[in-house]
Amino acid sequence: MNDAPIRLAELVLANGRSVSPYVWRIRYALAHKGLAYESLPVGFTEIAQLFGGRFKVVPILAHGEMVMNESWDIATYLDRAFADRPPLFATPAEYALARLCDEWLAGVIMRPLFAIYALDIHNAARPQDQPYYRQSREQRLRGRTLEAYTADRASQVAAVRLALNPLRAQLAHQPFLGGQAPHYADYVALAAFHWVASVSTLPLLAADDRVLRDWLERGFDLYDGIGRDARMRPLFA
Amino acid sequence: MNDAPIRLAELVLANGRSVSPYVWRIRYALAHKGLAYESLPVGFTEIAQLFGGRFKVVPILAHGEMVMNESWDIATYLDRAFADRPPLFATPAEYALARLCDEWLAGVIMRPLFAIYALDIHNAARPQDQPYYRQSREQRLRGRTLEAYTADRASQVAAVRLALNPLRAQLAHQPFLGGQAPHYADYVALAAFHWVASVSTLPLLAADDRVLRDWLERGFDLYDGIGRDARMRPLFA
Repeated sequence: MNDAPIRLAELVLANGRSVSPYVWRIRYALAHKGLAYESLPVGFTEIAQLFGGRFKVVPILAHGEMVMNESWDIATYLDRAFADRPPLFATPAEYALARLCDEWLAGVIMRPLFAIYALDIHNAARPQDQPYYRQSREQRLRGRTLEAYTADRASQVAAVRLALNPLRAQLAHQPFLGGQAPHYADYVALAAFHWVASVSTLPLLAADDRVLRDWLERGFDLYDGIGRDARMRPLFA
Repeated sequence: MNDAPIRLAELVLANGRSVSPYVWRIRYALAHKGLAYESLPVGFTEIAQLFGGRFKVVPILAHGEMVMNESWDIATYLDRAFADRPPLFATPAEYALARLCDEWLAGVIMRPLFAIYALDIHNAARPQDQPYYRQSREQRLRGRTLEAYTADRASQVAAVRLALNPLRAQLAHQPFLGGQAPHYADYVALAAFHWVASVSTLPLLAADDRVLRDWLERGFDLYDGIGRDARMRPLFA
């Protein structure tokens, strides 16, 4: 079973770059465990064409006969199925605390990031995906257009910069959120910045944000520069 | 050395109840490790009378010749000095992630809690401590009175309730923030509620906040009801 191939369905933009923050977490998780995989790149409208339409969102991980989605389930599965490789979560408490950090990021970072970049994502998507993306997201926004939703985005940038203070406090005295070595909690946060860097037309961070810049450089350099890509857009003003 | 007595300096109110959230963390930490200690109760004006005036704030932990303050340093010390007892942090990442949770709580919970309860703390303090408390806190508030600082506290209550959503999300599917067993991250958060329960004249949480209520009950029940006390004031409206 462990020798069975791993396949990872990931959402791609018009330029081919992987965009979903939830996929980026799993890309990091697979690299952390030293696992090779085959990428299944799909556009927003093609997810239903995979695996008999069982899943509506990415990431989707297939390992032999096993197919699953939802990034926390996938991360847990990888530790269980490949227990002989470096753990993502060395203890149950590490899993719980990383997940608590994720809950925090979801509310105060991820939601405002969508309010900043919802239109940028649309514009970076493949042309054939744009009508579906717009229609589905504007429905979630109760009929507001992407343009109206992101009109005030400059003020959201200020809010996100402030909300990132706990990360700065932590990273001021150690290289990674998880301590001396990168942890899944780092991957969760780094993945949000990969999402932004994939689509951004408005730099998120201030030029003098040295602590976050150094951590992002370290994070993008991990695993032979897994995150490095000429298509990345500037994160810093 | 390990047989040397442990003493813990803690701040007390007029009614004798321990109030500092940073002391409550260490009370939990000592109970977690099964360590007995002698309490050194002091008022706000008496901290400087201990240990030759070396420390300005509590907790202060003395263990034989060793004297230290700052709650994270104390927690780390306890794990190192009593490595044969249940660890507070089983891995370096547990320590780092619990500390990241603390950084988050400090900004979005602890600061607003002070804006709600700054005057309640004053009124619950020993009469002889009240002038010092008022003077030192109002200086930190750049001359604003405690009354002015807490005038809008009802709106802060709403903000804190919202900011606690990540805890609710986590606790909806497991008994403790750290998973199946209480973790130092739980103690950090529970300690904030002990602080509130020691002084509050305005209930912090909504009566129907079942998820937080259940977790608080579990947390106050730990270690033979370490936190239970007839002097506690209602946390729920």
